Amino acid sequence: MKLYDYKMAPNPRRVRVFAAEKGLDIPLVDVDLGAKAQMDDAYRVKNPQMIVPALELDDGTLLTESVAICRYLEELHPTPNLFGDSALERAQVEMWNRRMEQEGLAAVAEAFRNTVPGFAGRALPGPHDYDQIAELAARGQARLAHFFDDLNAHLATSAFVAGDRFTIADITAYIAVDFAKVAKKRPDDSQPALIAWRDKVAARPSAAA
Amino acid sequence: MKLYDYKMAPNPRRVRVFAAEKGLDIPLVDVDLGAKAQMDDAYRVKNPQMIVPALELDDGTLLTESVAICRYLEELHPTPNLFGDSALERAQVEMWNRRMEQEGLAAVAEAFRNTVPGFAGRALPGPHDYDQIAELAARGQARLAHFFDDLNAHLATSAFVAGDRFTIADITAYIAVDFAKVAKKRPDDSQPALIAWRDKVAARPSAAA
Repeated sequence: MKLYDYKMAPNPRRVRVFAAEKGLDIPLVDVDLGAKAQMDDAYRVKNPQMIVPALELDDGTLLTESVAICRYLEELHPTPNLFGDSALERAQVEMWNRRMEQEGLAAVAEAFRNTVPGFAGRALPGPHDYDQIAELAARGQARLAHFFDDLNAHLATSAFVAGDRFTIADITAYIAVDFAKVAKKRPDDSQPALIAWRDKVAARPSAAA
Repeated sequence: MKLYDYKMAPNPRRVRVFAAEKGLDIPLVDVDLGAKAQMDDAYRVKNPQMIVPALELDDGTLLTESVAICRYLEELHPTPNLFGDSALERAQVEMWNRRMEQEGLAAVAEAFRNTVPGFAGRALPGPHDYDQIAELAARGQARLAHFFDDLNAHLATSAFVAGDRFTIADITAYIAVDFAKVAKKRPDDSQPALIAWRDKVAARPSAAA
């Protein structure tokens, strides 16, 4: 298998960090989004969604969607468990991972893609073009502020995002918090639990992936 | 267990249809979103996210997020399988289900919640208030048009959304296509594969749930 990747983008990073936690070394193929390489015919034919990450299996099957890719890796390499160990824990990890996507990653994307000149006419990833919306960038900033405050409050009583151990929900949340710097948003002194958790996750070797 | 529900909303319907496919009869508790009952203290204390669906277990544990709830039900009642039967199928179902959420449900939500007077100041569900954005409603309409066309093209060569059998991805897609009527969007004669699939899914007893 090989992973179509782009170093600067948050979603491929989710898969890289996940794979690093598993101790996997998946060959990476760089798709230079900065040069719009995802729109080149070579990649577009392979992946009409024109997004990364995408995992290509040895038989040519292509998997997109970061969590679908991670779930496949979890099935092939169950240890360490990152999706939950019982029916209830798996549901709770799914719940928290989705909340971190909606409250965190989606908020950063709204704030970032609707302002940066490089995304003019490309406010959403994928095969269709959408214009930037200034009011949506402002909404993204407001959502990000709530995300940081709400996550700080949650982490004041929970060691990790989905309970007492590290899971994929921490990977999603950490990357959302870290990537928020592109929208000029960083944790501040009013968010000590968020900062302590961020520093704990950042210290894991996988965070460098 | 019991399910906090609202008949008119698309996300609780996903869980109701999923449970019906499993032959489950989960007690429903109506949370009248039309009367803003999700904001009443009684519900807010139980679920600070102020959303439905939410599944309350007998020990009081609350699960939110439609797919997290469905995954929990799948674990307790594995037959019929709706999340995939092998590592690869589970990844593909996850991929398609997420695409249907992003391309379908999210598009309807943008188009609907940013126009209807009842959602003024409440353009996103959850504990925080966000104003409607007219340009976002227009973007939702444009996304819906692509969703219908793209899904029609996909279903021209695939019996169901995630392959050759019915899965949770069909439930998500069907509810997105059906709910699009609130944004005045319906499949048309240029989308015969979409219509044939929709009629096939609508004929399942679960569609009435």
